[in-house]
Amino acid sequence: MVQKDGPKPIAAVVGAGRTKFGELWYDNPEKLLVEAGLECVESVDKGIGRKDIQACFFGSFLYQHTNKRGLIPGYMAQELGLNIPISMTEAACASGGAAVYNAVLGIQSGKFDIVLAGGFEKMSDRVDKIMDDLMFAADPHEFDAGFTFIGLYAVMMSRYLYDYGKGDERCLDAMAIVASKNHHHAMGNPYAQYRREFTVEAVKRSALVADPVRLLHCSPVSDGAASLIITSPEKAKEMTDTPIYIYASQQATDSVALSARDNLTGVKSTRLAMGAALEQAGMKISEIPLAEVHDCFTIEEVMYMEDSGFYNTGEAWKGIFDSYKDYEGLRHIPYVRGDAEVIVNPGGGLKADGHPVGATGVRQVFEVYRQLRGEAGDCQVESDGDLDAALCHNIGGTGGICTVHIFGRGA
Amino acid sequence: MVQKDGPKPIAAVVGAGRTKFGELWYDNPEKLLVEAGLECVESVDKGIGRKDIQACFFGSFLYQHTNKRGLIPGYMAQELGLNIPISMTEAACASGGAAVYNAVLGIQSGKFDIVLAGGFEKMSDRVDKIMDDLMFAADPHEFDAGFTFIGLYAVMMSRYLYDYGKGDERCLDAMAIVASKNHHHAMGNPYAQYRREFTVEAVKRSALVADPVRLLHCSPVSDGAASLIITSPEKAKEMTDTPIYIYASQQATDSVALSARDNLTGVKSTRLAMGAALEQAGMKISEIPLAEVHDCFTIEEVMYMEDSGFYNTGEAWKGIFDSYKDYEGLRHIPYVRGDAEVIVNPGGGLKADGHPVGATGVRQVFEVYRQLRGEAGDCQVESDGDLDAALCHNIGGTGGICTVHIFGRGA
Repeated sequence: MVQKDGPKPIAAVVGAGRTKFGELWYDNPEKLLVEAGLECVESVDKGIGRKDIQACFFGSFLYQHTNKRGLIPGYMAQELGLNIPISMTEAACASGGAAVYNAVLGIQSGKFDIVLAGGFEKMSDRVDKIMDDLMFAADPHEFDAGFTFIGLYAVMMSRYLYDYGKGDERCLDAMAIVASKNHHHAMGNPYAQYRREFTVEAVKRSALVADPVRLLHCSPVSDGAASLIITSPEKAKEMTDTPIYIYASQQATDSVALSARDNLTGVKSTRLAMGAALEQAGMKISEIPLAEVHDCFTIEEVMYMEDSGFYNTGEAWKGIFDSYKDYEGLRHIPYVRGDAEVIVNPGGGLKADGHPVGATGVRQVFEVYRQLRGEAGDCQVESDGDLDAALCHNIGGTGGICTVHIFGRGA
Repeated sequence: MVQKDGPKPIAAVVGAGRTKFGELWYDNPEKLLVEAGLECVESVDKGIGRKDIQACFFGSFLYQHTNKRGLIPGYMAQELGLNIPISMTEAACASGGAAVYNAVLGIQSGKFDIVLAGGFEKMSDRVDKIMDDLMFAADPHEFDAGFTFIGLYAVMMSRYLYDYGKGDERCLDAMAIVASKNHHHAMGNPYAQYRREFTVEAVKRSALVADPVRLLHCSPVSDGAASLIITSPEKAKEMTDTPIYIYASQQATDSVALSARDNLTGVKSTRLAMGAALEQAGMKISEIPLAEVHDCFTIEEVMYMEDSGFYNTGEAWKGIFDSYKDYEGLRHIPYVRGDAEVIVNPGGGLKADGHPVGATGVRQVFEVYRQLRGEAGDCQVESDGDLDAALCHNIGGTGGICTVHIFGRGA
């Protein structure tokens, strides 16, 4: 819980917008970004105009290569009719988180009072080429060796099953539970690419893509955009009575190549960014009731629940298996460890909400912003007033970069 | 001149490194970035180590598409053996300036004490494809209409000649003088792609590329990288006795498409960023004795000398023509207007030093850092102690984005 005498917020979110995620064949990426941008401007409670935005921080992974375009700052100046500073960041699948991170830096610098953070990606046009494109976030030697991105996570999942599952079928079940849970969570999410339930058995029976990763262990290829209005803690109350404060903003990096890592069953950049964020916010992981965790593949959610410290190393699969129960009537399925409970990916995560890569890190904040304000509609996490903090965790590549942000309703 | 009681510096440069610019066939882009990065770390007078760097801010335009790679943060973490926050910004040919801009934001945020700003580009590998690649920074309709980037500047140069030259041959001479002057300036620059003199007549006789733009009006296709160590004004003196302070850091944007602009003989983003930077530094343009001005095509240096306010609109060509004189024995050729004199592009500018696009905005700061410290070797601008401020101006696209930084030796 955010303490009254604890660390002060460093920034605040006062508006959020997004497009539907999915195969949006008729929309170009700039249109998606403008749609999400205007929606987030219009969402500010006490009203701001487009011209109140003093700077934009955008993120996209593959825009340049897949859309054969650069200079997004100029496009957005043209589309929005503004001549303000506009930044465009690339950090693979963490491009959205990096955009939020840079936007927070902009607010912390004192140079800007109101900025827009946006993320977007248009992937479906690339059809069969997208699997090669995604390998831009992997080491070229991995590409040359014939790996797809799914294959790289197959290596990590294999190693996890070998090291910690030791042949226990429940470990494989846990990998399927993550998918089943997140699809269940997405059932109330009108923006989600997939609002469809899958049983654990269905996930385990789905087509093998890169052994042991199956189709339903994977997040989809998606198009979409998301945007936020970020301001200083001091200015926030001028724009809404219920700002969501940012208490921590951290980023860490690690080698791109798996072969350059110490181990394959956890991600150093997550451990570093998560530890720094919790320290900045003055919180323990067990105090956070809600988290967006990067679940591009289900093995990731499992690993990151360990890297975050919620579960001990090698024990997340058991925790997840034990947390899972007959959820008939239960809107959200929490992960439990001792007295601590956390709901992970309440809107479906990357797995079911969709994963337009550059949009994801911003979409995560959109989700927790609405959750903490009690405005998440059919996805709203039930609470007796203790839903007061949330965490967003966004990964690029196989962990080459990680951003972590911690939010609260304020003391 | 920087006033003792004027605005305070917002950051400081304490180290600078770069590679040679040119056709570096045997070097990959990551290697160039590491080379420039290590050189700038080693250049810090009182010594810092690689591990003292708390964050990196990189910029490149076409890296992803031309090199089929993304996630530079992860690559650099791997190459440098660091796990720090690393940002990668794309702003077309202003990617380097944007990296510096974001690095300064990082310092101003108070989050970091010591950051590295780096820019790089590897273009020569693309050979004939590079002209199409560069059009990523133009409007797709301009590409579809058959424009190359040179063609777009040919439109601007044509309009300038028509509106202001009115058939006067001296206006065409001024466009050639810019090239001849910058090649002359580069003669002492060991890093420059071209250390070769061209007379005004030689420029005017060079091959026509896109009428009225001739080959020697254009900057070259280049490979290279440049890096800086940026710190807070307070920390700077711990690292060197002669830091170069940053007094202004500004960015502005404008439409990508020329057809969406009010006029073709000036660039709004330059006027906005330049005006804001001069105001931030509390200086007049006539007080700045040294400037790096984006001279990708010579018409640009002419236009920007007007957009900066040094010359009145439509009068830069006359000022440039009148400033130019027999320079035998003269190391640098200043632009003169009344009592004001400014030396522009003392190391040869984009024109002769080279233009690896993402590196350029950082290379400009490398140049003025050494000039203001009196360490520019054979390129050193002569001074009787009044070389105390400098400006760097970097453009993306045909003006869709612009960054301006103002530096000084301190009060």
